[in-house]
Amino acid sequence: MPTILGQNQYGKAENRVVKITRDGDTHHIKDLNVSVALSGDMDDVHYSGSNANVLPTDTTKNTVFAFAKEHGIESAEQFGIHLARHFVSSQEPIQVARIRIEEYAWERIATSDGNSRFIGADDVKHSFVRKGQETRTTQITFDGEKWEVISGLKDLSVMNSTNSEFWGYVKDKYTTLKEAYDRILATDVSAKWRYNWTSDEERMPNWEKSYEQTRKHMLQAFAETYSLSLQQTLYQMGSRIINSRSEIDEIRFSLPNNHHFLVDLEPFGLKNDNEVYFAADRPYGLIEATVLRDGVEPKIPVDMTNL
Amino acid sequence: MPTILGQNQYGKAENRVVKITRDGDTHHIKDLNVSVALSGDMDDVHYSGSNANVLPTDTTKNTVFAFAKEHGIESAEQFGIHLARHFVSSQEPIQVARIRIEEYAWERIATSDGNSRFIGADDVKHSFVRKGQETRTTQITFDGEKWEVISGLKDLSVMNSTNSEFWGYVKDKYTTLKEAYDRILATDVSAKWRYNWTSDEERMPNWEKSYEQTRKHMLQAFAETYSLSLQQTLYQMGSRIINSRSEIDEIRFSLPNNHHFLVDLEPFGLKNDNEVYFAADRPYGLIEATVLRDGVEPKIPVDMTNL
Amino acid sequence: MPTILGQNQYGKAENRVVKITRDGDTHHIKDLNVSVALSGDMDDVHYSGSNANVLPTDTTKNTVFAFAKEHGIESAEQFGIHLARHFVSSQEPIQVARIRIEEYAWERIATSDGNSRFIGADDVKHSFVRKGQETRTTQITFDGEKWEVISGLKDLSVMNSTNSEFWGYVKDKYTTLKEAYDRILATDVSAKWRYNWTSDEERMPNWEKSYEQTRKHMLQAFAETYSLSLQQTLYQMGSRIINSRSEIDEIRFSLPNNHHFLVDLEPFGLKNDNEVYFAADRPYGLIEATVLRDGVEPKIPVDMTNL
Amino acid sequence: MPTILGQNQYGKAENRVVKITRDGDTHHIKDLNVSVALSGDMDDVHYSGSNANVLPTDTTKNTVFAFAKEHGIESAEQFGIHLARHFVSSQEPIQVARIRIEEYAWERIATSDGNSRFIGADDVKHSFVRKGQETRTTQITFDGEKWEVISGLKDLSVMNSTNSEFWGYVKDKYTTLKEAYDRILATDVSAKWRYNWTSDEERMPNWEKSYEQTRKHMLQAFAETYSLSLQQTLYQMGSRIINSRSEIDEIRFSLPNNHHFLVDLEPFGLKNDNEVYFAADRPYGLIEATVLRDGVEPKIPVDMTNL
Repeated sequence: MPTILGQNQYGKAENRVVKITRDGDTHHIKDLNVSVALSGDMDDVHYSGSNANVLPTDTTKNTVFAFAKEHGIESAEQFGIHLARHFVSSQEPIQVARIRIEEYAWERIATSDGNSRFIGADDVKHSFVRKGQETRTTQITFDGEKWEVISGLKDLSVMNSTNSEFWGYVKDKYTTLKEAYDRILATDVSAKWRYNWTSDEERMPNWEKSYEQTRKHMLQAFAETYSLSLQQTLYQMGSRIINSRSEIDEIRFSLPNNHHFLVDLEPFGLKNDNEVYFAADRPYGLIEATVLRDGVEPKIPVDMTNL
Repeated sequence: MPTILGQNQYGKAENRVVKITRDGDTHHIKDLNVSVALSGDMDDVHYSGSNANVLPTDTTKNTVFAFAKEHGIESAEQFGIHLARHFVSSQEPIQVARIRIEEYAWERIATSDGNSRFIGADDVKHSFVRKGQETRTTQITFDGEKWEVISGLKDLSVMNSTNSEFWGYVKDKYTTLKEAYDRILATDVSAKWRYNWTSDEERMPNWEKSYEQTRKHMLQAFAETYSLSLQQTLYQMGSRIINSRSEIDEIRFSLPNNHHFLVDLEPFGLKNDNEVYFAADRPYGLIEATVLRDGVEPKIPVDMTNL
Repeated sequence: MPTILGQNQYGKAENRVVKITRDGDTHHIKDLNVSVALSGDMDDVHYSGSNANVLPTDTTKNTVFAFAKEHGIESAEQFGIHLARHFVSSQEPIQVARIRIEEYAWERIATSDGNSRFIGADDVKHSFVRKGQETRTTQITFDGEKWEVISGLKDLSVMNSTNSEFWGYVKDKYTTLKEAYDRILATDVSAKWRYNWTSDEERMPNWEKSYEQTRKHMLQAFAETYSLSLQQTLYQMGSRIINSRSEIDEIRFSLPNNHHFLVDLEPFGLKNDNEVYFAADRPYGLIEATVLRDGVEPKIPVDMTNL
Repeated sequence: MPTILGQNQYGKAENRVVKITRDGDTHHIKDLNVSVALSGDMDDVHYSGSNANVLPTDTTKNTVFAFAKEHGIESAEQFGIHLARHFVSSQEPIQVARIRIEEYAWERIATSDGNSRFIGADDVKHSFVRKGQETRTTQITFDGEKWEVISGLKDLSVMNSTNSEFWGYVKDKYTTLKEAYDRILATDVSAKWRYNWTSDEERMPNWEKSYEQTRKHMLQAFAETYSLSLQQTLYQMGSRIINSRSEIDEIRFSLPNNHHFLVDLEPFGLKNDNEVYFAADRPYGLIEATVLRDGVEPKIPVDMTNL
C-alpha cells in the first residue's frame, strides 16, 4: 500500500455545557464550550471502517455532560483534567486525550440600587449578564503519564491612545510609510500560556487565581509600556507574566495591529491634532512571538490563526 | 414607462470613526460606526445615471470625519443630529437624512493596584479595554422640520437561572413539549426605543444619562420578574422603561429564547437536579413586541432581524 | 395602565430541515432554514403570563418537520404556504402567520468522468456539493384571507471589471473624490420581490421557474448595463425583472458598493493601467431602492439591513 | 535576564488584492487575500523597540500590490513564491518568509442566452459572479534555500444522502447512541496538501491543474466511498489523491461530522423513512487525520482549527 495513515484524532467538538450551582438563593454559573479529541490505536477505522476501537463521539459528548454532574466544574482546567484522565484510563485503545475548552464569563445583574421602587427589588442572586470581553481558553493534553496544560484568552481588545511611536525602520523601494511619533496602539490580544505542572505528583496551580493574575499583568504591561513597536509591547507583556507567575514557563501571543489612521482633515481647512482616527479592518499588521523562561524548551505550537 | 422608482436612499455605510479627547494626561474615547442614508430628488440618477443631484457617498464619509473634529462627539445621538441637519440643510436635493450609529464602549485599564513593582506603574489615563457586552445604537432621522430619534442596544446576553416557568399552553396534535416549573431563561436583548423629542423648540434629552438609566431598568426588570413566559418578561422590561423614563414613548424588543435544555442523565444513573444544561444554538424561540405609552402612535418598524 | 402592548409576534426561528426524496437511486435534496412568527390574540401572555392562547414555539418547530413529511417540499414558497395556512386555520387565537425561509442550493458531484479507474465509479446519484453563491429567501404572510409572498435572494456577489463610470456629481466643501471614467463596479446583491398572487382563487406562479428566471434577468441586467452610477444599474436590474416577469409587481434592492480602489503604484515607478485594485471592507456605499410596476402600491418594507 | 524571546514573526495580514487582466474585451480576474509573515534577526525590536532591522508591515503590503503589477498573478502559488523569494533575498535580517494566500473564484455571467431582447445582449466578457463553494488556500515558506508549498481548500460542503453506516463501535457506561445502517454523511471539507517540490532546481508543478485535479479526486472519492465511518471516507479521499497526484506527498483533513438527525415523527403518527432530517449546528464530530505517501516524513502541522 503506497499510502499510510499519519497523526489522527477524533471526538465531539463544541459541547456547550452550562452548570448551575445553587448555594441557597445564590446561584453560580459555569458556561463552557468543550471539545474532545482522542488519539490512539485507530488504524483500522481509517483503513477498513471497522469501529471496534472507536468510542463514539456521541459518547464523548455524553461524558462531558455527565462529568459536569459527577465532578462539578471547579475550573475549566480541572474539568478538562477529569475528562482527559477518564478517556485515557478507561479506554484501552486511547493513548492521548486532548480537551479544549472555551469559557464565557458572566457577572451578576445589580438590582439593589437602593432607589428601586418595584416589587422584587431585593437583591437578586440568580440573574446574570454576560461579561463580554475576552474568551478564556484552555487545552489539556494527557498521554497517561504527563500532563500539558496550555491556557489562554482571545479577543481581549485594548487600546493606548498615546505613548506609542514607530520610526527608525528599514526603508526599501516599496516603503512609503511616514514615521510616527505619537500614534494609537490597539490590538485584540490572543495569548496561550503553558503551565509547568506536568504530573499528578506535583502540586496543581490555583487555576482561577492564576488566570486572573495573568490577565491583570497582561493588561497592566500593555498600559504601562511606552511603546516603540508592538513587538516591544508584546515582549513586555510576556516577560512580566513569566517574571510574576512562577507556574507559567512560556507564553505565545498573536497580536493584530489594529490600525487607527489619523484622518487628513487639511482639505477641509481643519487641523487633526491626534483627535480623529479611521479604524481600519484589513489589512492589519500581525505580530506573533513566544516569550519563555530562560532554559525551558518551547512547546506551544506556532500557529495561532488560520491565516 | 411601465416601471417606476419607489423609495430610495443612498450614502456611505459603516464609517468607523474613533475620537480621542485629551484632558491633560486623561484621555477619553468615542468609538462609533456611522452609516449615512440620504433621500430626496434622486429620480435622474436612477433613470439616466445623471449624478447632478448626487453628493458622493465619499463626501458623506468625509463629512463624518470632519464633523468629529468640528463638533466633537458628545453622544452618538448628538453627533447624528449634527450630521442629519447638515445634509438636509446644505443640499437642496436632499429631503431626508437618516444617520445610524453603533457605539462600542471602552473602560479604563486599572493600573494603580498599589502592589505593582514595575516602572510606569502610576495610574495610566490613556489605556483602555473594550467593555464588551452590548452594542449601543441610535438612528436619527430628519426631514428638515421634525426629528425622530430611535436609540437602542443589541447583543446584551442575560440569563436567569431560576424563577422561570412555562406551562398551561395550547396543545395540538404536534405538541410534545413537557411543562416546565423551573427553567433557565436566557436571551440576547435587542431593543429600540423612540424618544418623544421631535423639534428644535423642545428641550433635548440627556442622551448619555437616558441610555444608562434605560439599560439599568431593562436589566433590573429582567432580573426581578418571576417569569411565566418570555412575553411576560418582555412586557415588564418595556413597561418599566416607559414608566420610568418620560422622554421615551415606545420600545420594541426582539428576544431570542436561548434554550438551555436540562440534560437527561438518567441513562448514566445520575439525577439532574436543575444543574447541568445543554445550551442550544438553533432553532430558538423568537419573541418580538412593542410596548407603548398609552395614547401614542407606534412608529418603530416591526422588523428587527433579517430572519 | 399607562403602558400598552403594540404589535407582537412569536414563534420558533431557524428550524433547519433537510428533506431527501428518493427516486430509485437518484436522490433529491431540499435544504431549508424555516422561521415561524405568529400574531393574534396574545395580550394575556404579555400582561399576566397566561399561556392559554399560546401554541408553544416547540410545537411550531414540530409542525415544520412533520409538514416536510406530510406535504413534501416542492418549493420554499409552497412549503411556507402550507405552514401559514395551517397555523391560521387551526388555531383560533392566531390571526396572522408569517413564515420566512432561507434555502441553500446543492448540486450533484460529477463522478462519471469517463477516466476514473476506481471502484464505484459509476455515476453516483446521492452525492452533493453545496452550490455556494446566493441564499434564496421567501416570506409568506397569511391573515386567513389574503396571501403576501415576498421572495428574494442575498449574498450574490457580482463584479464588472469595466463599463462603469462615476462623474458629474455635486461637489461641496467636504468633497475630495476624483471623477472616474473606468472603474470596477462590484456588489453583493440583496433583493426582495413581491408576487401579485394574493388569493387561493388565483393561479399560483411556478415558484421554481420564477426564481430561476428572476435571478437570470438580474445577472444579465447587471452584466449588460453600461453604468454611470450604481443607482442606474439597480434600476436597470429592477425594471428588467418587472418587465419580464408579469407575476412580480415590486422589487427592492440593497446594494453595497464594494469599493475596489485602484492602487497608486507611482511611488514604485509603476503604472497601474486599471490592473491592480485594493478590495476594501468598510466603509462602503450603500444604495437601496424599490422598483415598481406603474400603478401598484409599494409594500416591501424599506429596511433590508440592520445598519 | 530570566526571560527570553522564542519563535517570532511579523508582517501585514489580509491584503485583499484584485488583479484584472484584459485580453481585448475579455477580462480575467484573480482575487486574493495575501498574508505576509517574516522571521529573522528580530531580537532588538522585541527587547528594546529598535526597528533598525524591521521592514515595516506597510512595506510588505505595498510589495504585494506592486508585485501584482510586476509579476502578474499566474497562480496563488506562483505569486507567493515571487513574494517569499523577494523578502528573503532582499532583506539581510529576514531569514524565513511565509506567505499565506486565500483565493476566491469567480465565473462569468452568461449573457448570450439567445432569447435576450435587451440592448447590449451580446456576450459580455467583463462580468463575473463569485463562484461560492470552497476557498482555495496556499502557504509558501522559503528559507533562502528550500521551498515548502502547502496548498489546500476550506469550506467545501458535501453530503451523501445514503451509503453511510455507523455501527460496531465501543460501548461504555456513557454510550446511548443507536447504531445506524443508513445515515446522511455530511461535512465541510478543510484540507491541506504538501507538494514535494522544494527546490528551484526541480520542475515546478502546474499549480492550477494540480488544484483542479486534487479537488476533483477529493469530491469523487467522497461520492464513491460506501462509508462505515467518516474516518474511512477521509482516508479514501486522501489516498486517492496521493495515488493520483505524484506531486503531492501528504495531505491532512479536518472534517466536521455535520450531523443530520432523523426526526422522530412517530408522535404525530408519521413514519420517517429516511426522509426528514434536522441539520444540527453544535456539537459536531470532528475527524482529523494525515494521509501520507509511504516513506515520507509528515510536515503539515496538526492544528487546522482553533478549537
